[in-house]
Amino acid sequence: MDQFEARDGVLLVGGQPLTRLADRIGRTPFYAYDRALLTRRVEALRAAMPPKLELHFAMKANPMPALVAHLAGLVDGIDVASAGELQVALDAGADPREISFAGPGKSALELRQALAAGILINLESFREVELLRALCAETGYAARVAVRVNPDFELKSSGMKMGGGPKQFGVDAEQVPELLARIGEAGLGFEGFHLFAGSQNLKPEAIVEAQLKSFELALRLARHAPAPVKVLNLGGGFGIPYFPGEQRLDLGPIGANLAALIERAAVALPQAKLVVELGRYLVGEAGVYVCRVVDRKVSRGQVFLVTDGGLHHHLAASGNFGQVIRKNYPVAIGNRIGDEPEAGVSVVGPLCTPLDLLGERMSLARAEPGDLVVVFQSGAYGITASPQGFLSHPGAAEVLV
Amino acid sequence: MDQFEARDGVLLVGGQPLTRLADRIGRTPFYAYDRALLTRRVEALRAAMPPKLELHFAMKANPMPALVAHLAGLVDGIDVASAGELQVALDAGADPREISFAGPGKSALELRQALAAGILINLESFREVELLRALCAETGYAARVAVRVNPDFELKSSGMKMGGGPKQFGVDAEQVPELLARIGEAGLGFEGFHLFAGSQNLKPEAIVEAQLKSFELALRLARHAPAPVKVLNLGGGFGIPYFPGEQRLDLGPIGANLAALIERAAVALPQAKLVVELGRYLVGEAGVYVCRVVDRKVSRGQVFLVTDGGLHHHLAASGNFGQVIRKNYPVAIGNRIGDEPEAGVSVVGPLCTPLDLLGERMSLARAEPGDLVVVFQSGAYGITASPQGFLSHPGAAEVLV
Repeated sequence: MDQFEARDGVLLVGGQPLTRLADRIGRTPFYAYDRALLTRRVEALRAAMPPKLELHFAMKANPMPALVAHLAGLVDGIDVASAGELQVALDAGADPREISFAGPGKSALELRQALAAGILINLESFREVELLRALCAETGYAARVAVRVNPDFELKSSGMKMGGGPKQFGVDAEQVPELLARIGEAGLGFEGFHLFAGSQNLKPEAIVEAQLKSFELALRLARHAPAPVKVLNLGGGFGIPYFPGEQRLDLGPIGANLAALIERAAVALPQAKLVVELGRYLVGEAGVYVCRVVDRKVSRGQVFLVTDGGLHHHLAASGNFGQVIRKNYPVAIGNRIGDEPEAGVSVVGPLCTPLDLLGERMSLARAEPGDLVVVFQSGAYGITASPQGFLSHPGAAEVLV
Repeated sequence: MDQFEARDGVLLVGGQPLTRLADRIGRTPFYAYDRALLTRRVEALRAAMPPKLELHFAMKANPMPALVAHLAGLVDGIDVASAGELQVALDAGADPREISFAGPGKSALELRQALAAGILINLESFREVELLRALCAETGYAARVAVRVNPDFELKSSGMKMGGGPKQFGVDAEQVPELLARIGEAGLGFEGFHLFAGSQNLKPEAIVEAQLKSFELALRLARHAPAPVKVLNLGGGFGIPYFPGEQRLDLGPIGANLAALIERAAVALPQAKLVVELGRYLVGEAGVYVCRVVDRKVSRGQVFLVTDGGLHHHLAASGNFGQVIRKNYPVAIGNRIGDEPEAGVSVVGPLCTPLDLLGERMSLARAEPGDLVVVFQSGAYGITASPQGFLSHPGAAEVLV
């Protein structure tokens, strides 16, 4: 992957040779996130987007505290999906005024924590309005709320559809006027809308279409709002390339469209700031997962590199996290960059299951026990999206370099 | 599921009404394993199997310490897949002479721990022979080893194939004679063979065929062994029903075949005991996952029960752990057993992802917030096979009742 350089055949992460980094960490496997790549990613995104657009980090993609703290200093807000994430965001120094909280099943305890923190709560059901009303009466805290809308359209070509049709997320667009009336009656502080159509999309025209439709839906719904719209969160969905043949997302059309929407908002929703909420796009390409070759086995002509890492640390790379057809993440032997490749090599983990597969019949530099296997594009939905307790093997370290 | 009874419309687990059990635990979600069902399962299995057959528990299916301790008193041995599992087995009071350790990527540290514990090590590569030889020389510990064989056939109709073709597991049958010679030269204490063709099989004829072929392969390989075979582990593969239309495994043909194999072994391998190694089959049906309805939402005509539990605790039930096509696990409303069902109800968790689905368009008793959702067949590959850190929600409790 071209975002990482190599020197003398060794991959550099955070400017460190991977072999030295492994020695510094003292064990494998580990995840390493490159601080400079995170910074450059935000800078490149800002350069391609209109200046008034606000960038939020959806920390569900990677809640490592040091990484959240680094990003909190670069973006305009943090989006959390649980009270646990809220705590990490606050510890990281994020401004509560710029934290928002979404999730289809918020508990009374979580809502109380959110109220006490003073963050923006994305309401996702009529029940949450009633709960908040009661909690505000009991505690005296003021509620800051937005409405998460389940739109009446889908994000086309999306890795996962988060809106359109029947969904557990948000409130159906057609029910939102009634919900807004209830919010007004309950005296909750209405601030705006949150629309999130889907994720992991590599087609700019699909993202442009979803953002345009989201904007227009929000305009229609704003007529029913009990107060002016101050925040319009148009969601995310910006994808990154994982598999052969996939190209990086072209930001040009998206930036142009958002610039036009910001101009329209200046007239139609003069108090509103426009927000995009990105998780994977900000962090996915900045991270690698690194494990060590424990054994090199040849079984009936096929080479298996058996490593100390596997699906218990990186379920997505094993193809078992929402994928229909398993494909290989990009993989390299991190201390043999540029070596002559051998073909048909499979990289597996130490678990007693055939699911524990990090790379299937790939072309890789010839590797021996002790060598370091690198799985790229691993900065998002890595360790926290993996069954770390499976078979009671040691966990993976995480470092920000 | 007929293994659990209900009283006054409330499911009983371990003889306790589920509502009372939830109060005793003090929170949801939780996994509950029924001690009496575990005991009855082992008894029923013993009744259907020849008396001389040894039953092992493959604790990767469920490493909860209290459950392992309970089963250790019922079965003849424990099979572990990591040094972490070894520790739990020893803490549970299992006899080290009856613990065996398999895994394709055993580290030098793990092998040293296994040697010190005095357990049986299933060797899976030539490298492990050399490592053990060196470790024995260094430490003075005696090695007890078996050879895990990658057979030259597959277990037909199996949920997962663990042998046949090129595999990271064990040593290809055709390379085993050479490995046995090395074991002899290295002075390691050879005790037998381990063959494991596949898992989660509901066809007795397929299991019978695999056990017969495994036995005959072991007979052929035994001619090359440096010492008499004392243990012949024929693996597991006994499945349990998860999905509509699946029937419980008919043990009759399997027991009859194993009785015949034990008779043949008495002549051909007179010192050998035959072992089957079962994980899911022993514990899967004895466990339930229980979460609480937080919200009841109707989106575009479809009912969603939003619960406090989800894929972060029970990835397999969400259809994201090795399944190609998602199917519903059996689900019920545990405090409304026998109530009139409503159709088309989906059960989801609190996570911001459409993958967080415990039941899709099912017929369930009409449920409201506060009710308890039960996912059956959850005693194996539950919490430890799930991404518990995903979105930083609270974990699930585990109880043995």
